[in-house]
Amino acid sequence: MGAKFKVHGDLRSGNCLKVKWVADHLGLEYEWHDVDVMAGETRTEAFLTTVNPAGQIPALVWPDGRRLAQSNAILRYLARGSVLLPDDPFVMAKVDEWLFWEQYSHEPYVAVARFLMLYRGESAAARPADLVARGESALDFMERALAEAPMLVGSTPTIADVALLAYTRVAHEGGFSLAFRPNTQRWISECESALGIAPIGKKELQ
Amino acid sequence: MGAKFKVHGDLRSGNCLKVKWVADHLGLEYEWHDVDVMAGETRTEAFLTTVNPAGQIPALVWPDGRRLAQSNAILRYLARGSVLLPDDPFVMAKVDEWLFWEQYSHEPYVAVARFLMLYRGESAAARPADLVARGESALDFMERALAEAPMLVGSTPTIADVALLAYTRVAHEGGFSLAFRPNTQRWISECESALGIAPIGKKELQ
Repeated sequence: MGAKFKVHGDLRSGNCLKVKWVADHLGLEYEWHDVDVMAGETRTEAFLTTVNPAGQIPALVWPDGRRLAQSNAILRYLARGSVLLPDDPFVMAKVDEWLFWEQYSHEPYVAVARFLMLYRGESAAARPADLVARGESALDFMERALAEAPMLVGSTPTIADVALLAYTRVAHEGGFSLAFRPNTQRWISECESALGIAPIGKKELQ
Repeated sequence: MGAKFKVHGDLRSGNCLKVKWVADHLGLEYEWHDVDVMAGETRTEAFLTTVNPAGQIPALVWPDGRRLAQSNAILRYLARGSVLLPDDPFVMAKVDEWLFWEQYSHEPYVAVARFLMLYRGESAAARPADLVARGESALDFMERALAEAPMLVGSTPTIADVALLAYTRVAHEGGFSLAFRPNTQRWISECESALGIAPIGKKELQ
């Protein structure tokens, strides 16, 4: 630990931004290496053998050869011992619960809808109905949780909030609206402020 | 910690079995409460308000009211400080990498194919082509990893192995074959032996 690591990522990808936000917020030293997924750069022999055999970003590489992939596993590692990951084992478990929920019940719908529209140029109307329904359901679930508590776990941002923030704040780019989700809007602004992220803008949250 | 918790689960579900295997292996005291997902038991008002608002199993409830869902978050919590979760932060991060990979790149294909066949009674031939391709790809990825190392992380089973074992050993029930994946077969037998799980049988692995 301590050695400057390299982050292979794409700044348009929420999964990659999560890593940048946490590293920046904690003042970690790293080198960012842009990767173009759409140009097949995660599928080259060099990428698969030296960066991530699973062909995905974000992926971290340390000077001593250690490698780590999966955005939420990276967040958990980088944030250990910091304000972004509580020490208490059960509170930590509640953070984990959100991290796994994000990758199983939120990202595959909210982020994938955005991918279809932003990267593939498809229209909101062309999104598969099941994808839309599950994305709306995930956003509703968050809205209910955020109506009851200031943050997803506890009262200050944790990596659970970072992980969910990434694609929720750009949900409009996937055809979803946060207009009737005031608690989610409030939470986005508070997370951005606490983490030092440039606000996405009031208009985008409508 | 220490108080006997209740596990709401279904023994046909790999995600639920993971929890049972870890709790049994570590000698934790718990009470198992059978839940029938197909009968809508995870969607009742009582389940949503007192067990898991996300309407999913497995879900743990402690006598003091604490609740925890998401199979891999549960494994991580129950296994902390045990032989199933290494202390070293980076080794732990590699375990996390597999846990997140399992929920994003393996379970949605290998487990969902099994769900379609076992719970819905569909035929292997009726499985969506994309689901099959991604499931085969996930099983190939594991086979390559297990050709290079005895276990997914290190040389003795961790919760990464437990998490992947759950649906990989019953991949045949989803129409997948392990016949040409000898390293995966070897790993399944070794995990079952180390964890004290009744062997799935040679025939099923073909």
